[in-house]
Amino acid sequence: MDERFGPDRRVTLPHPLPLDGGGTLSPVTVAYETIGALAPDRANAVFVAHALTGDQFVARRNPLTGKPGWWERMVGPGRAIDTERWCVVCANVLGGCSGSTGPRTIRDDATRWDMDLPVLTIGDMARAHLALLDHLGIERLRAVVGGSMGGMQALALASIAPERTAACVVVASAARHSAQNIAFHEVGRQAIMADPKWAGGRYEPVDPPAKGLAVARMAAHITYLSEQGLTEKFGRRLQERDAASFGFDADFQVESYLRHQGLAFTGRFDANSYLYISRAMDYLDLGDRPGGLAGAFDRATRFCVVSFDSDWLYPTSESRAIVAALNAIGAPVSFVELSSPFGHDAFLLEVPELDRVIAGFLGA
Amino acid sequence: MDERFGPDRRVTLPHPLPLDGGGTLSPVTVAYETIGALAPDRANAVFVAHALTGDQFVARRNPLTGKPGWWERMVGPGRAIDTERWCVVCANVLGGCSGSTGPRTIRDDATRWDMDLPVLTIGDMARAHLALLDHLGIERLRAVVGGSMGGMQALALASIAPERTAACVVVASAARHSAQNIAFHEVGRQAIMADPKWAGGRYEPVDPPAKGLAVARMAAHITYLSEQGLTEKFGRRLQERDAASFGFDADFQVESYLRHQGLAFTGRFDANSYLYISRAMDYLDLGDRPGGLAGAFDRATRFCVVSFDSDWLYPTSESRAIVAALNAIGAPVSFVELSSPFGHDAFLLEVPELDRVIAGFLGA
Repeated sequence: MDERFGPDRRVTLPHPLPLDGGGTLSPVTVAYETIGALAPDRANAVFVAHALTGDQFVARRNPLTGKPGWWERMVGPGRAIDTERWCVVCANVLGGCSGSTGPRTIRDDATRWDMDLPVLTIGDMARAHLALLDHLGIERLRAVVGGSMGGMQALALASIAPERTAACVVVASAARHSAQNIAFHEVGRQAIMADPKWAGGRYEPVDPPAKGLAVARMAAHITYLSEQGLTEKFGRRLQERDAASFGFDADFQVESYLRHQGLAFTGRFDANSYLYISRAMDYLDLGDRPGGLAGAFDRATRFCVVSFDSDWLYPTSESRAIVAALNAIGAPVSFVELSSPFGHDAFLLEVPELDRVIAGFLGA
Repeated sequence: MDERFGPDRRVTLPHPLPLDGGGTLSPVTVAYETIGALAPDRANAVFVAHALTGDQFVARRNPLTGKPGWWERMVGPGRAIDTERWCVVCANVLGGCSGSTGPRTIRDDATRWDMDLPVLTIGDMARAHLALLDHLGIERLRAVVGGSMGGMQALALASIAPERTAACVVVASAARHSAQNIAFHEVGRQAIMADPKWAGGRYEPVDPPAKGLAVARMAAHITYLSEQGLTEKFGRRLQERDAASFGFDADFQVESYLRHQGLAFTGRFDANSYLYISRAMDYLDLGDRPGGLAGAFDRATRFCVVSFDSDWLYPTSESRAIVAALNAIGAPVSFVELSSPFGHDAFLLEVPELDRVIAGFLGA
């Protein structure tokens, strides 16, 4: 029994991690889990990267929240990412709050990092993932797969280490954050920082800036849904009443839903982590180099790019930009825009066509 | 010299105002201004209705902020709404903070209304406007004109009093608030209410919940701009620096711009007014009656409906729904979708085609 593999694992990296913003971070802990057996040739590993508020508990019950894994419908025995065939690895991102080094982590001088933690990038996260693969003895990934910010990590990983990434699946994502993306994140950060309980980031985890974080989540949540999806799901329906109350209570179902989303989030996520991870996304621009976006990639990697027609957060045009760059270097790429009324959130929801696309691409 | 006409006027209505939410409001003050001479037959009055954060100072310097009128490019001598031909009337909406009765108003018992003010509707605003027209001796408007929430008041006014509304110009607006519209407003309200300085609405005007209000304004501001407009205006350009600072300062121009918008807003607008007016918009649904939206209108009024192709807050589909309802009753209606990169904000910006459409329609 190899103790490095299994649920709810942690590793402290043997070397300081170089950061895009300059300097290094040390020590770095990576919290992760693996599902499925690594083949003797170690060639069947699939790394799944999580989104902004995700965690390493991709397909097993989350011990912190008691909830099912966040992508159980995609990852498991017989699922599209079949754990009877692939050894799935999922790690909490750097800056996160589920065990990997982040603002809540106690540093060497016995104080919490809080806002003293250096600002991180998607590239930094990808380098931490590569260090984890070193720890696991995985030289080359069969594939890296991710939706939303997970797709950004997948792209960054394939960009940094193409020789270690045989295939790369990017769902509902982008290779750079647009002005509108940055704007929405900035609103969320300002909502957190406006909460007096934030206190410059030096709040106690038991007494967090929950109101600010809830507002940040509410604003973000709107961007995860489509106008059409919101209309189908809620329209102007009233919440448990027959007539409008003409007050400031949650008269409309959509208000009640958003308030619930905001509140529920504060129980499971750290406000400073939200600042750091959202900031990492804002700094992403893989095209910011000589040769533009095409210069970021290598033909050694096969790519699969998927967008959703109702996703206005990372619209299909962002996926097309990635595909155009890959075409420019002659990299093998398959691209599909799927139809879904659910907006950006579709990558987490029941979209059987997505399962078929991913299963087919991984098995090819 | 008729003292009822001119800049910076106020009237206290002679009767209590019946409210859609039940009961009446009394006393009601309406702050307004008029520009241009009323013709002897009193048939040349054009009522201009303002948007969420607007005021009665449509085309004259705002005495509170020292800034030019908010629609000077549209309203004035020789402008599209020509004050040498029309007598323009503009009034601060009920619930506002520029002189009309709102949460800041001292009521009869010598206390401020604050959150004791009844929740208002767009219909209540329109009825206050009609009472103002009674005061001015204007039986029938040549036209009512409004963009965004101004368009909603225009529609409500034409719906409540078609015999008093010869024409109705509705720009970048909607006849109901969608689930997404309500969701964005709810985020703004929650941001205000999360600010401890809000204190249940009982803050002193000199010490308002400025941080919460700034966050609300930032979130709303994103919806006023198009993704394309944001990209053209800011892209990923950095703010007064050559390289990313990898910090939480406003590294990107779009962040700096949003922060400025949020901050500047708190100096000129009242947080409780923001709650009341945004709530009034959420309750708007002119189609919520027998006969649907078509049942809201009358053939006695000529309509002009204008949308912008990059407006995702009140997209063209909302204007089409209005036009379809008007077509169903055989009301005279002209409809145009204008092209602009500026999103919802286009109705306030330099769009010469909008001027031509409005001038032509008013003169016809």
